[in-house]
Amino acid sequence: MNMPNKISVLKDLFDQYLAQQKMTDNPENLYLPINYIMELGGKRIRPVSAMIGYNVFKDDVGLALPLAYALEIFHNFTLAHDDVMDVAEIRRGKPAMHIAYGLNSAILSGDAMLIYAYRYITACKTSAEKKVQLINLFTDTAIEICEGQQMDMDFEQLNEVALSSYLLMIKLKTAVLLAASLKSGALLAGASDKEGDHFYAFGLNIGLAFQIQDDVLDLYSEAVGFGKKLGGDILQKKKTYLYLKGLELASAEKAGDLIELYNSDNFPNEIKIEKVRAVFDELNVKDHAIGLMNELTENAYDHLNALEIDNSKLTELRRLGEMLLARKS
Amino acid sequence: MNMPNKISVLKDLFDQYLAQQKMTDNPENLYLPINYIMELGGKRIRPVSAMIGYNVFKDDVGLALPLAYALEIFHNFTLAHDDVMDVAEIRRGKPAMHIAYGLNSAILSGDAMLIYAYRYITACKTSAEKKVQLINLFTDTAIEICEGQQMDMDFEQLNEVALSSYLLMIKLKTAVLLAASLKSGALLAGASDKEGDHFYAFGLNIGLAFQIQDDVLDLYSEAVGFGKKLGGDILQKKKTYLYLKGLELASAEKAGDLIELYNSDNFPNEIKIEKVRAVFDELNVKDHAIGLMNELTENAYDHLNALEIDNSKLTELRRLGEMLLARKS
Repeated sequence: MNMPNKISVLKDLFDQYLAQQKMTDNPENLYLPINYIMELGGKRIRPVSAMIGYNVFKDDVGLALPLAYALEIFHNFTLAHDDVMDVAEIRRGKPAMHIAYGLNSAILSGDAMLIYAYRYITACKTSAEKKVQLINLFTDTAIEICEGQQMDMDFEQLNEVALSSYLLMIKLKTAVLLAASLKSGALLAGASDKEGDHFYAFGLNIGLAFQIQDDVLDLYSEAVGFGKKLGGDILQKKKTYLYLKGLELASAEKAGDLIELYNSDNFPNEIKIEKVRAVFDELNVKDHAIGLMNELTENAYDHLNALEIDNSKLTELRRLGEMLLARKS
Repeated sequence: MNMPNKISVLKDLFDQYLAQQKMTDNPENLYLPINYIMELGGKRIRPVSAMIGYNVFKDDVGLALPLAYALEIFHNFTLAHDDVMDVAEIRRGKPAMHIAYGLNSAILSGDAMLIYAYRYITACKTSAEKKVQLINLFTDTAIEICEGQQMDMDFEQLNEVALSSYLLMIKLKTAVLLAASLKSGALLAGASDKEGDHFYAFGLNIGLAFQIQDDVLDLYSEAVGFGKKLGGDILQKKKTYLYLKGLELASAEKAGDLIELYNSDNFPNEIKIEKVRAVFDELNVKDHAIGLMNELTENAYDHLNALEIDNSKLTELRRLGEMLLARKS
């Protein structure tokens, strides 16, 4: 993912601020795991989105840093707890928090991170009314994210999942946080509720498209150095957009075959991936995915166009969308 | 614990409200564990304390119910996660949440409960300024509780713990929530910051005394039907007030003997308890505990007396303190 210049400046500003927030309080065992995961890096998409949202209305983007930090520490809290629930051992190429510090630390330090998110939101220099507005948006979003994670875990236990349920799950689990990041940055800078709603809708649509793109790239990425082999989702039997759309498009008989194939352990990895891809290709699943991504992207930009804001002010928002959706890997 | 009449009326009011908050949203698997733990019962000390604090200033105590609920759902979140960390299987005589619903549910539904606490605080019918004040108090308290839980876990790994560290731990892990409950109820009803601080200090001192009493009763309870046998803390080698005060009072040689005895597995349970109690008795540890409890209780009531509020308005606060500290079991 290439980061446009201005966005990369905002990211640097955020990373500087993040380094200053290093936690040195006692007990050390509570705060070391927090510093560990916060310093693992990452693209900082949510805090940068909040800063971009803020920047549309105001220049003094430093005032958005506590909000940006709240979003990032919250996001990392979800990673810490999700890695426990998903029994995932690696995070950003390093041991996940529960591997590095143990289960109890991942739970308790994660809890503390969630609480610190609220502390940082109320630390924003703004009116009490605005703080309450930001807290309510954040709280609603955080609850949705828990609901999305629960749906994701539920899906693992189910044989069939409707595509509409899958889309709701990725909306709740990931898209709402991008949406809320953009909206809350805008609100902090004085956007009207209506403007905030357009920012939210822009982020939601981009976020959904991004997740579908993620599923597509897992199998169809053309990039060199994608870091992992193609078809990992198939080997994990993940219920992705491609698989669920395939089931939706296939005849009853073909769908039965696909379910059997997808859940089969009878083939060598490469052969299984080939076979599943052949079914997807026959059903044109990839084109459907790209069609939906394009539709979502259009929706997203419609919301930008609906804003009565000088177009030149929206450049970074457009670039953010392009950056998230233009990647080949 | 006998509940005075008025306090029991408040508890009933709260329990009615709690029953109405039963969560019926989707996904079911996120909300069933929350309903489960919230309906396990309990004395509802924190919500009732908030209602008592509110009632000192205002009669329409129904307006304090969302705040009271926030404190109770937060408290139950801590129980759900602590039971995972402490590998505790039973909660209020029933399977702990992670036993009844699994580890992942205890983590995720617990997270959601913490977030819902914030939703309930901002649902209080009051000004934005007051909401922010309540949220900040709650956030500070929640962080302290995480710190206390971390200290408690750290102590299990240590051979020696200073009594002062132990007192700090019980303050953070439990006393601050009683203090914050009383203060936030009072603030919601319009108490001044200074009045709020006295409510807080009252709750903090009572909370500390309550915890020390807990340690004393574990070994010295005279009540019939205490539910568990005396000396459970000794068998678990728990670093209680009695043990740590004993180490502080003993000569270096005696302290060494006590450490050895306390950590020994060479005696039948009853014999070990007898031997430890004999050491405690020789050192007058129980008298020291009662002395400290009396001191804390006096401090607590000094803070009530410092309030410029008609004494008759403070009756339930006094009764709350008496209820918490008068129990023989």
